[in-house]
Amino acid sequence: MEDKTRKIREGDIRAVSRLIRNLEDRIPTTDEAIRHLFPFTGKAHIIGITGSPGAGKSTLTDELIYAFRQMGKTVGVMAVDPTSPFSGGAILGDRIRMQRHAEDPGVFVRSLATRGALGGLSKAVGEGIHVLDAMGKDIIIVETVGTGQQEVEIIDHAHTVIVVLVPGMGDEIQAIKAGILEIADIFVINKADREGAGKLFKEIRGSLDMAKNFPGGWRPPILMVESLFETHSFSQSVAELAQKTLDHHQLLIDKDLMGDRKRRKATAEMNEAIRAAVLEPVLDELVSSGRLDEMIQKLVDRASDPYTMAAEVAKQYLAPKKTEEP
Amino acid sequence: MEDKTRKIREGDIRAVSRLIRNLEDRIPTTDEAIRHLFPFTGKAHIIGITGSPGAGKSTLTDELIYAFRQMGKTVGVMAVDPTSPFSGGAILGDRIRMQRHAEDPGVFVRSLATRGALGGLSKAVGEGIHVLDAMGKDIIIVETVGTGQQEVEIIDHAHTVIVVLVPGMGDEIQAIKAGILEIADIFVINKADREGAGKLFKEIRGSLDMAKNFPGGWRPPILMVESLFETHSFSQSVAELAQKTLDHHQLLIDKDLMGDRKRRKATAEMNEAIRAAVLEPVLDELVSSGRLDEMIQKLVDRASDPYTMAAEVAKQYLAPKKTEEP
Repeated sequence: MEDKTRKIREGDIRAVSRLIRNLEDRIPTTDEAIRHLFPFTGKAHIIGITGSPGAGKSTLTDELIYAFRQMGKTVGVMAVDPTSPFSGGAILGDRIRMQRHAEDPGVFVRSLATRGALGGLSKAVGEGIHVLDAMGKDIIIVETVGTGQQEVEIIDHAHTVIVVLVPGMGDEIQAIKAGILEIADIFVINKADREGAGKLFKEIRGSLDMAKNFPGGWRPPILMVESLFETHSFSQSVAELAQKTLDHHQLLIDKDLMGDRKRRKATAEMNEAIRAAVLEPVLDELVSSGRLDEMIQKLVDRASDPYTMAAEVAKQYLAPKKTEEP
Repeated sequence: MEDKTRKIREGDIRAVSRLIRNLEDRIPTTDEAIRHLFPFTGKAHIIGITGSPGAGKSTLTDELIYAFRQMGKTVGVMAVDPTSPFSGGAILGDRIRMQRHAEDPGVFVRSLATRGALGGLSKAVGEGIHVLDAMGKDIIIVETVGTGQQEVEIIDHAHTVIVVLVPGMGDEIQAIKAGILEIADIFVINKADREGAGKLFKEIRGSLDMAKNFPGGWRPPILMVESLFETHSFSQSVAELAQKTLDHHQLLIDKDLMGDRKRRKATAEMNEAIRAAVLEPVLDELVSSGRLDEMIQKLVDRASDPYTMAAEVAKQYLAPKKTEEP
C-alpha cells in the first residue's frame, strides 16, 4: 500500500489510472488507498465547470488547460460523464477528448462514468479529486453535465465554480430554476456570437443586481466567449477566464474564505463516507441473502408496504442501544 | 389516520395537497400516511416525461392532459421541479403552470421541489405517485428535467417513458450519452418545424435499428410534434402521442410485462425506504449531537480521514452480530 501511495504521489500514470478505474468500479479496497493518500491532499485549487448539455464545456475545458499550462501550472481534469446506467461505460471517453494534451506530462485527464443506481457518484468524484491532488497537480478541473441536485453535489467539491451558458437554449429561465445563479463564482456566456447573447447577459446581470451580498465582495463576473475557435478573440477570452479563476482563488485566500469552501467539501465527503459505511453493508447482505428480492415481490403483490419492511431491516441491523460515545 | 386516508381516497383536494406538501418538506409522519394508502395503490397507468431543459415538456404535458381528458380519463400530474437547493421552493410553481385545467376536478397537478442534499427525491416522487394513485386517477404523469442518474431514478417509477428531444440543441449526441435511448418507450421530437428535425429523426431511427431486441416487440415510435401551438396539426400530434401511450400500456398488459415495470418501481421504493430507515436516524443523531461538525472539522484539518471516522460510526450504530433472520 505504501508503495502504491508513493507511486501515485510521484505521478505514476499507470498506478493513478488503475486507482481511478477502481473508484469508478467501486472496488472496496479503494477506501484504503484513498485513506493513505488523504494526508497528502488539500493543496490543489479545485475548479468546477458546469452547464447544460451542448453548452461547450469540453471545448472550454480543453482551452482552459492550455491557458493554465501557459502560466506554468500543472492541471488534472476529472470529466464526469453521464453515461447509460444500463450499458455502463463512457461512450465519449478520454480517447476522443482533449487529445492535444496527450503528450504533456503536466496534464492528466480522466472521465468518470456515472454508473449504478444507489448513489455514490459524489463519493467517486471526491475521491478522484484526492488522487489528482495527491499527484501534485496545481489545478484540478471537475467538468460536469446536469441539472439539479446531482450537479450541485459534485460542485460541492470545488473552490471556484464556472457556470457555462449559451444563448437561445432557454437557459435564461433554467438558470434561475436550477439555482445555478447561487452556485456560480464566474459566468461564461459561450457562443456569444449567437443571437440572444446580449439578452442573456442582461438577465444574469439583472439577477446579480438583485443579490443582497457577495461573500468577500466577489461579484461573479460574466465573460463572453465567442464560438469561433482558433481565433485570437477566443484565446483571449479563455486567457481572461483563466485569470479570473485564479483571482477568485486568491480572494478566497485573502478574505479567509477558503475554510468555508473546504468545509463544504468535507461535509459532502463525510456524508458520503457514512452512507457507504452504514448503508452499503446492510444492502449488500440483503441482496446476497435474496431477502431484498423477497421484499420487492411483497411490494409488487401489495402484501406489505415499504415502511413496515424497512423498519424491520432497521430493527435487525441497527444497534439496539445508542450511546453518545462508545 | 383512517379519516385522512378516506379523505384522500375520496379526492379531498385539501387533504391531498397537505400530504404532498409534507412529503416535500420531509415531515416524518408521512411514512405512516403512505403506509395506510399503500393497499389502495397500484391501479394507475404511470407515464414519465423527460428531456433536456427547454425541450417543451410542460407544454406537452399540458396538451396531453387535454387529450386524455377527451378520452374520459382522469389525470394526476407530478412535476418535479429542479429548484435551488439554497433558496428552496419552486420558482415556477403550480400557480403559473397548466392553469387551464384549474377548474376541472378530473385533473390534479402538483410540483415537487427538489430540496435537500441528502437524496430522497426519488422517495418523495414515488410517494407522491402513491397519493395520486390512491386518489383514483386513471393516469399519472411524472414530468422531470435532468440528465443522468437522478432522472433515471425518477423514471424508475413509470410504466411508460416519453423522451422529448428538440432539434439543434446537441441532443443527438446527448441522447446517446445520457442513455435515454434505453429508457425511452416513445420518442417525441418537439418543435419539429425547426432545422435539424430530420437529422435528429434519422439519428434516433439509426440507433433503434442497431438495438438487438425490443421487449414484447415494442419498437419505440418517434413522433414529430410542431411547435405551432393551437394549430390543428399540433393537437393531432398530441392526440396521437396519447394514443401511443395507451397502446404501450396495453402491450405491457397483453405481453405480461407489467410485472417487470412494477418490480423496477418496487426496487426503487424499497431501496429508498431502507436508506431512510437505516441511514437517516444515524445522520440525525450525528447532526444533533454536533459530532458530524466535529468530524467535518477534523477532515478540513486533515486530522483524520473520512473512512476511519465513518468506520467508527458504523461500529457504533450497526448491530455487532448479524443474523439472517431475527
